[in-house]
Amino acid sequence: MNCKNLGKLLGKIMVLEGLLMLAPLLVSFIYRESVRGKIAFLLPILALVGIGLSLQTLKPERSFLYQREGFALVALAWIVMTLFGAVPFVINGDIPNYIDACFEIMSGFTTTGASVITDITLISRAGLFWKSFSHWIGGMGILVFILIFIPESDEGSSMHLLRAESAGPQVGKIVSKMKVTTRILYLIYLGLTVLEVIILLFDSPIPGYENDKLFFSLLASFGCAGTGGFGFLPGSIELFPAFSQYVMAVFMLLFGCNFALYYLILIGNVKAVLKSEELRAYLLIILLAVLLVFLGLIGSVGDFAQVYTGEEAFRHSFFQVASILTTTGYTTTDYQLWPPLSATVLLLLMFVGGMAGSTAGGIKVSRVMIAVKGLYINVRKTINPRYVPKAKFEGKTLSESTIRGVFMHMTFYFLLMLLVTLILSFDPVGGTAMTVVSDGGTYEVTHGIFTNLTAACSCLSNIGPAFEAVGPYASFAAYSGFSKLVLLFTMLIGRLEILPVFVLFNAKTWKNS
Amino acid sequence: MNCKNLGKLLGKIMVLEGLLMLAPLLVSFIYRESVRGKIAFLLPILALVGIGLSLQTLKPERSFLYQREGFALVALAWIVMTLFGAVPFVINGDIPNYIDACFEIMSGFTTTGASVITDITLISRAGLFWKSFSHWIGGMGILVFILIFIPESDEGSSMHLLRAESAGPQVGKIVSKMKVTTRILYLIYLGLTVLEVIILLFDSPIPGYENDKLFFSLLASFGCAGTGGFGFLPGSIELFPAFSQYVMAVFMLLFGCNFALYYLILIGNVKAVLKSEELRAYLLIILLAVLLVFLGLIGSVGDFAQVYTGEEAFRHSFFQVASILTTTGYTTTDYQLWPPLSATVLLLLMFVGGMAGSTAGGIKVSRVMIAVKGLYINVRKTINPRYVPKAKFEGKTLSESTIRGVFMHMTFYFLLMLLVTLILSFDPVGGTAMTVVSDGGTYEVTHGIFTNLTAACSCLSNIGPAFEAVGPYASFAAYSGFSKLVLLFTMLIGRLEILPVFVLFNAKTWKNS
Repeated sequence: MNCKNLGKLLGKIMVLEGLLMLAPLLVSFIYRESVRGKIAFLLPILALVGIGLSLQTLKPERSFLYQREGFALVALAWIVMTLFGAVPFVINGDIPNYIDACFEIMSGFTTTGASVITDITLISRAGLFWKSFSHWIGGMGILVFILIFIPESDEGSSMHLLRAESAGPQVGKIVSKMKVTTRILYLIYLGLTVLEVIILLFDSPIPGYENDKLFFSLLASFGCAGTGGFGFLPGSIELFPAFSQYVMAVFMLLFGCNFALYYLILIGNVKAVLKSEELRAYLLIILLAVLLVFLGLIGSVGDFAQVYTGEEAFRHSFFQVASILTTTGYTTTDYQLWPPLSATVLLLLMFVGGMAGSTAGGIKVSRVMIAVKGLYINVRKTINPRYVPKAKFEGKTLSESTIRGVFMHMTFYFLLMLLVTLILSFDPVGGTAMTVVSDGGTYEVTHGIFTNLTAACSCLSNIGPAFEAVGPYASFAAYSGFSKLVLLFTMLIGRLEILPVFVLFNAKTWKNS
Repeated sequence: MNCKNLGKLLGKIMVLEGLLMLAPLLVSFIYRESVRGKIAFLLPILALVGIGLSLQTLKPERSFLYQREGFALVALAWIVMTLFGAVPFVINGDIPNYIDACFEIMSGFTTTGASVITDITLISRAGLFWKSFSHWIGGMGILVFILIFIPESDEGSSMHLLRAESAGPQVGKIVSKMKVTTRILYLIYLGLTVLEVIILLFDSPIPGYENDKLFFSLLASFGCAGTGGFGFLPGSIELFPAFSQYVMAVFMLLFGCNFALYYLILIGNVKAVLKSEELRAYLLIILLAVLLVFLGLIGSVGDFAQVYTGEEAFRHSFFQVASILTTTGYTTTDYQLWPPLSATVLLLLMFVGGMAGSTAGGIKVSRVMIAVKGLYINVRKTINPRYVPKAKFEGKTLSESTIRGVFMHMTFYFLLMLLVTLILSFDPVGGTAMTVVSDGGTYEVTHGIFTNLTAACSCLSNIGPAFEAVGPYASFAAYSGFSKLVLLFTMLIGRLEILPVFVLFNAKTWKNS
C-alpha cells in the first residue's frame, strides 16, 4: 500500500472540501447569522486547509495507484470528508450530537437525503445550504472532481478512481480521453443545474417564503442534480407551486439519465442516444410506474387519507415516481398513506434506481435488464443444452462475466439489506409507537420490522425516506447512535457500490505495501 | 417433445394419486362421515385410476427423457395432481370454491401450509387427513416415489426427474446407484415419521381432544415430515402439551437435514456426517437464531402482547425457529406480536430455509454459504488481482459455475418475490383492515404492502404463515381468486426451485419434438 501517495491525494481532497465550505460561510454572511454560526464553518475550513496542505509535503515513491489503492482512497476520502463536514452542525447547534451530524452529512454526500432533523425550521440558513450543497458535491463524486485538477496523475490511476466512484455495471465507452470527458461531464452537470435554477425562478414564489426565491431555488436544484433530496422547508417540496413541482420532477429524471447520453448529444450523435436500450427501458419504467401509481390513486378514491383532484393525483404520481426512481427522495405528499398498488410500485422503484452513469443510486436500470436477460438465457439453455446464448445489451454481446457480476451484485445487495435489517432490529426504539403529522392527517405508526427493512433499502439505494416510522413525513432521529452509524456505512456502501468500502476495511488491503 | 412418453408417465402418477387417496377415504369410513364425504374421495379416485390406466396404452417411440422433458413432466405432474386433489374439498363442502381448494392442496403438496380456511373446526376428518397427508406425499417428491416403481426407465431419465424435483444446488454424491438409494431415502423418511408418531403417542393427550390421540399425532407428524405445517386444530400447535411441542420442534429440525446424512449414518460413515459443512452451519444458525429470539423475548418483558414464563419463552423460541427455518410453518404462539428483534430473526429465517436434500424449502443453507464464500472470493480478487481463489465447500473446490448458479438463483428468488408482491398489490383487499384473534389478544391489522411482501416470500419459500394480514393466526382467504392462482404458482415455483415451471410454460419447450 502506497500510504504516502494516498495521504497526498487525501490532502488535496481536504483542501478542496475546505474551499467548498466557503460557500455556506458566504451564506451565513449574507443572512447575517450569528458569530458562532460563522465560526462553525471557519474552524473546519482552517483545519481542512491546514492539514491538507501539510499532507502535500509527503514524497511518495511512485505516483500511480493500484486498483485496490484506488478503492481504499475513495472510501477513505468519503469518510474523512464526513468527519470534517459534520463539524459545523455541532458548533452552530443545528445538530448538537456529533454522530447525528455525521449521519446527516454522509446522507448528504451520498445523496441519500435521510435526515435526523425533526424540525427543519430550526436549522440555520448556512446549515441548510451546506446540507443541500453536499448533495451537489457528492452527486458527481468528489474524486472525479479532483481528477480534473491532478496534472501529475496518469490515466491508469484515474481510471481506478473513476471506477470506484462511478455507479453502474460499466464505466462506458467514453472514458478513453478521461480528463477531457470528465471535465465535459462536470460542465453538463453544472449547466443543467443552472438551467433548473433559472426555470424555477420564473415560477411564482413559495407561499410564506416570498423573499427567498433564489435561495430555495438553488437548494431545490442541488437536491435534484445530486438526486439527494434533503428537505429544507416543512413537508419537503409540498409547499412549492405546482409548476415548480413539475419542473423538479422533469429535472430529477434528467439527472437520473446516463450523462454519457448528454455527451453524445453534444457531439451530435443523437442516433446513438435513441438506440440506447437502457434509456428506452428507463422511459418505459417511468411510463408504466406513473400509470400504475395514478391508476392506484384514481381507482381508490376516498379509500385513503388524502383527497386529490385529477391534476393533483397525476402530479403527485409523476413527482413521486421521478423522485423515488432517481433515488432523490423529495416528496410532495405523504405517499405511505396511498393505496397498496401505488405504494408498492414506489417500493419496487426503490430497488431499481436510475441509469448507470447518472447521479442516481439503487441497483440501476441496466443491471436489472442484464439480470433479466441472464435469467432468460439460462432458461433457454435448460430447455435446449445446445442453445448458444446471443443476448446483447447496448449492441454488444453480453459476456458471461458481465452477467455473473450483475447476479453477484444483486445477491450482495439483498443479503446486505437483510443483514442491516437484522442489526437495526436490536435498536431499543423497535416496537414503540410514533406520531406522524402529514398532509394526510395525524396518525400513529409502529417502529417495526417494515420500518427497518425499508430503512435499510432506502439507505442502500441512497433514497432517503422509506415507510412506516421512517416514512416521508418522519425522520431517522429515533434510531440509536449505533444504528445511525450502521446506516451511515450502509449509505456509503450504497453510493460507492459495495466494493470500495469492503476493500478499505479488509486487513489484507494494508498488508504487503 | 416425447408427448406419448410424458402421457404414459403422467398416467402412472395419476394412478398413484388415486391409490393414495384411499387413505382419506378410509378415514372417512372410520369416522363414519356422511355418504357425500365418502363420494367426495371415491369419484376422483375412480377418475384418476381410470384416466391413468388408459394412458398406459400409449406406445412411446423412445423411453428415455431429455432434461427439458423431465422438467416439463415434473411441473405438469404437480399441476395435474393439484387439479384432481382439490376435488374432494369441493364435493364434501370443506372448501366449496374450486380455486380455493386448488390453492389449499397445492399448498399441501408443495409443503407450504398456507391455508384459505378460516375456521378449521368445520373441516371433515377425511379433509384434515388429506390436507396433512398431502404434505407427507409432497415432502419427498411424488416423482421420486414413482421412480422406484418404473423398471423400464433408464438411469439418465431418472436423474433428470430427480434433479427437477429435488431441492438444493447439487444432488450430491450418492446418486450413482439411484434407485437403491432413493428407496433407502424413502425408508428413512417413513421410519422417522413412524418414530415421531410413536413418541407423540407417549405424551398426555391434547386437552379437549382426548379421544383422537393417534389421529392428531399422525397429522402432526405428516406436517413435520414434509415440513408442511397445515394446522388441524384451532391455533395450529398451540393446544399441544409442552413435551409434544419440543418433540415436534426436534423432528422438524431432523426433517430439515439433508437425508444423505442419514444414509451416511446407516452405512456407518459417521465421520463424513460430522465433517459436513452445511450441517455445522445449519446447527450454528439454529443456535444463534434461538438465542436471539429468546433474548428478544426476555429483554422486552411486558413490552409485547403475550406474557411468558422463562420456559415458555424458550419453548416458543425453539419451536418457532425450528418451524420457520425448516419452512414448516407450525405455530405455538402469535409470533407477529413479538418484539422486532425476535420477529426479524424469524423473517430472515424465512429466506434461508433448511438444508439441501431435505424436505424443507427456502433458499437453502448451502446456497447461502456458497453465496457468502463467492462474495468473499470476489472481494479478495479486487484487492489482489493475482489472487487465486481456493474456496472449498464440503471438501471440494467451489467451481465458478456453481457460484454463478447460486448468484443466479438468489437473483431469481428476489426478483420473483418483488414481482409477486407487485401483482398482489392489485388485489382489491389491499388497504382493508382485518381483525385477528390470537393468544396475544384481539387486534387489527391492515392488508398492506408488508402483507403482500411476506406472503410472496412465505409462498416462494413454502412456509405458510407470514406477517400482518397473513400472519400465524390469519389465513389467505381474503385474497381474490386471481391472487390465489398467482400464489399457487409461486408455491410451485418455490417447491420445484423455479426452473421446471418456466420450462413447462415456455412455448419453445413444445417445439421440435
